[in-house]
Amino acid sequence: MKKIINDPNQVVTEMLDGVVGAYPGQIKRIPDTNVVTKKDAPVQSKVGIVSGGGSGHEPAHAGYIGKGMLDAAVAGEVFTSPTPDQVFEAIKAVDGGSGVLLVIKNYSGDVMNFEMAAEMAEAEGVDVAQVIVKDDVAIEDRDGRRGVAGTIFVHKIAGAMAETGASLEEVKAVAEKVIANVRSMGVALSPCVMPASGKPSFELGEDEMEVGIGIHGEPGTERKPLASANEIATELTKHVLEDLELSGSDEVAVMVNGLGASPEMELHLVNRKVQGILQEKGVKAYKTFVGEYMTSLEMAGCSVTLLKLDGQLKELLDSPSDAPAFRS
Amino acid sequence: MKKIINDPNQVVTEMLDGVVGAYPGQIKRIPDTNVVTKKDAPVQSKVGIVSGGGSGHEPAHAGYIGKGMLDAAVAGEVFTSPTPDQVFEAIKAVDGGSGVLLVIKNYSGDVMNFEMAAEMAEAEGVDVAQVIVKDDVAIEDRDGRRGVAGTIFVHKIAGAMAETGASLEEVKAVAEKVIANVRSMGVALSPCVMPASGKPSFELGEDEMEVGIGIHGEPGTERKPLASANEIATELTKHVLEDLELSGSDEVAVMVNGLGASPEMELHLVNRKVQGILQEKGVKAYKTFVGEYMTSLEMAGCSVTLLKLDGQLKELLDSPSDAPAFRS
Repeated sequence: MKKIINDPNQVVTEMLDGVVGAYPGQIKRIPDTNVVTKKDAPVQSKVGIVSGGGSGHEPAHAGYIGKGMLDAAVAGEVFTSPTPDQVFEAIKAVDGGSGVLLVIKNYSGDVMNFEMAAEMAEAEGVDVAQVIVKDDVAIEDRDGRRGVAGTIFVHKIAGAMAETGASLEEVKAVAEKVIANVRSMGVALSPCVMPASGKPSFELGEDEMEVGIGIHGEPGTERKPLASANEIATELTKHVLEDLELSGSDEVAVMVNGLGASPEMELHLVNRKVQGILQEKGVKAYKTFVGEYMTSLEMAGCSVTLLKLDGQLKELLDSPSDAPAFRS
Repeated sequence: MKKIINDPNQVVTEMLDGVVGAYPGQIKRIPDTNVVTKKDAPVQSKVGIVSGGGSGHEPAHAGYIGKGMLDAAVAGEVFTSPTPDQVFEAIKAVDGGSGVLLVIKNYSGDVMNFEMAAEMAEAEGVDVAQVIVKDDVAIEDRDGRRGVAGTIFVHKIAGAMAETGASLEEVKAVAEKVIANVRSMGVALSPCVMPASGKPSFELGEDEMEVGIGIHGEPGTERKPLASANEIATELTKHVLEDLELSGSDEVAVMVNGLGASPEMELHLVNRKVQGILQEKGVKAYKTFVGEYMTSLEMAGCSVTLLKLDGQLKELLDSPSDAPAFRS
């Protein structure tokens, strides 16, 4: 295992020190927890937005803390859900009297632990609502779909809505609108290596790739011969488009997300083809994001996300964010 | 070789299509060249800033095009200097009547070709000045030092100065001030693979690392047993500090730069230790950047850059940039 780490069992707590060390004017850590919040949390009379999950997806989720995005991020161990008590700490820390929205990726551990935390907070009189992101079309059953890179758009748009002074119900409604209109799919050229085990998450031949991977090192839904950038972009975009049902006049936000080890050069090659496919269909790419937004440690590969936009979503997507990993 | 590419000989031109496809409102390509410029270039009465070099360092350099940063980036083939005629095209495209500053990384091919381009432009009546970035302290001889991640600070600060309406001479002077005060050093845990050859740039054992690497796949100045994040951060920072001679009351900008494949988690572990070392010395980290700014394809590893600041440099570092890879 070749990693720049110290003790494999301390990577999460040390990473959070590093994050706070990088942005001490913006982000603080709740002592004795793996919860990081806005420096000025709670923001009075604004709905608080909390997300999080297992670590290993950086810059998710701590990098998305900022004005116009998240108020807190809860970091579990690598690829492991945070415990309910940690999520509960986050909720209490960001409640400014208008309630708190939890943005949960659809993994059973995350859903269970965030929901338990919500109950604990509600018992103390905090209004809590939650949404569950399920954007990964590699899984056919919609209820079983994992939350992957599309989650970033939920953070951005719910966070922007909260800044407008909207109610918890309104912030939840717009988050649900994003979830209803966002789809992703990914491919891996290499596995990732968990720091604690030091072992690759799966074995893959030199001429193979895994299509339909998640973000926790699990293999994909199909193993195929390694394809070209154009073929990969075409396959991912095809599955996303089949599920999203866009018509000619629609506008979308595009995210070509690197999973960790793939050079940005390669992401731009994928984006080139994705843009070509959208143009052919007459679908307008309103805004495009190319980079590492939701990673899986040092996995090589990428995902393609499309979010169907309307006027409200465009406005909220464009509004300011000063989160370190998503300035707009 | 496992890459998401199409034709290995077309990666640069296809990548530039991808970049322009991602940011069509901000960046355009000069037809039949590998030069990309601001959409609204030339900006009248503003000094134009041009950088570039071999490809494979993304988001450098095209990602730094924007208000407050670069006006144009010239992309050579992977790890290969762009030709003088391409640099000449860039200079002509961004000259708004106040002259053009070339930011050159210190590689013989780049220096020669950018200087030839400057002569071609001057022969046509364009005022051209140039600065050569030499921030890599792995090379003892100061004149032989390579330009690496510290180049990003030159882009940012020279670009900000140009926005103030400063003269070519003034913009050049502040770029030289950055160069005089910025130092970097890097370490690699794995080589990179050139798309055209498909071969790793060097061989490295499972328990080894290369200290003092550049950004073109060359081996480092020393091969050592793989060390911990704390040890790596300590060694890189030590060399940088020895060369920069900071005193207790100094303020610095910090960049912990990923070379391509290392997860952001690992960069934060390095940052944690760098911040600790600076605190011990009483040096204030005024602003910190953790991420992939100057990469070397899919090389695993990182570099540490420190820039000693004064009031002018702080103000210019903080001023707005809308470049896709450096929003501030």
